[in-house]
Amino acid sequence: MTKGRLIIVSGPSGSGKDTILQKVFERLPEIKFSISTITRDMRPGEVEGEKYNFVSREYFENMIKNDLLLEYNNYVGNYYGTPKAPVDKAIAEGKEIIVEVDVNGARNIKKCREDAISVFIMPPSYEELNRRLSSRGTDAPEVIAKRMKAALDEIAEAKNYDYIVVNDDLNEAVEDFITIIKSDRLNIKRQNYLIDEVLKKC
Amino acid sequence: MTKGRLIIVSGPSGSGKDTILQKVFERLPEIKFSISTITRDMRPGEVEGEKYNFVSREYFENMIKNDLLLEYNNYVGNYYGTPKAPVDKAIAEGKEIIVEVDVNGARNIKKCREDAISVFIMPPSYEELNRRLSSRGTDAPEVIAKRMKAALDEIAEAKNYDYIVVNDDLNEAVEDFITIIKSDRLNIKRQNYLIDEVLKKC
Repeated sequence: MTKGRLIIVSGPSGSGKDTILQKVFERLPEIKFSISTITRDMRPGEVEGEKYNFVSREYFENMIKNDLLLEYNNYVGNYYGTPKAPVDKAIAEGKEIIVEVDVNGARNIKKCREDAISVFIMPPSYEELNRRLSSRGTDAPEVIAKRMKAALDEIAEAKNYDYIVVNDDLNEAVEDFITIIKSDRLNIKRQNYLIDEVLKKC
Repeated sequence: MTKGRLIIVSGPSGSGKDTILQKVFERLPEIKFSISTITRDMRPGEVEGEKYNFVSREYFENMIKNDLLLEYNNYVGNYYGTPKAPVDKAIAEGKEIIVEVDVNGARNIKKCREDAISVFIMPPSYEELNRRLSSRGTDAPEVIAKRMKAALDEIAEAKNYDYIVVNDDLNEAVEDFITIIKSDRLNIKRQNYLIDEVLKKC
């Protein structure tokens, strides 16, 4: 039985990370997605259990106390976390599971799950990132500058990831992401069992 | 400039390694091949400088003395080695170079070139390996048994490689090999420079 794999994905606002992942899941529907547990209010258009599980602060703090989270943080008064159970279940079943987190979350997960592979989605250039972050048109220059700084701070951490996928052309970026997954399926850590299969007849 | 990569490839007799590599070079002609330096006599059909450089024993021993080899060994009185210069040149130019060696050669190269990635080409099963090694028809059972044992001894070392490519269907095996190369081009060690490119404008 092939061993599964935890795949950590990060990328700043403007990297097009969500669109890439959506297309990857369409192409490889066998891959699982880790649903984050969060305490903030549901926003219009969001669906419980799709990208997030919405829980109470008390419920979340109980998860922390019982060590049920792979990583979590508190941002502007709300908790965001990755539950352990679905990740461990997917891997035990030999499946891949993608966890979408920011650079801090990625660092924390790598500490306790060294076997995870990590992919950073990157805009092709400074100018293009600026263009993407400005394109809503109605935002004040200070708001765009703040968004730009946050994105560049994330990009500076890309060196800690295993792979970089540059999102210049969307289809190419999706291809690249799928290539990383398919290549990982050939990794010795996931194919070790083949050796014994060929040798067992000696 | 993308950093190059040394790719070590091994596989026992009967793995179809040579056919796979031939097709990989057809598909990705930018990849270099490391020509081995050897002291045995040229065989019919062999061409100087194609797969091997044929040199004298004295010449080879001078290469050893001057530390010009990445690895070498002596087999039935003849030397076989991988010269350092073409490998280092290809990598400095940001290219991939494939070195085809046996499990001992692979181990020795990994000692001094930790950054190399290694791929082991494997037959799909014990039975198929036996079939392939017997198919010349005219060989005595003892000869086949000896060949089989040598192949199985090599396969037992596959656990030390980074990737396994199973050669059941030739086209799939070629695809798998190319997937490994393409995925490696997205590896952080080869794409680090992209981070600075996006950030340098801050």
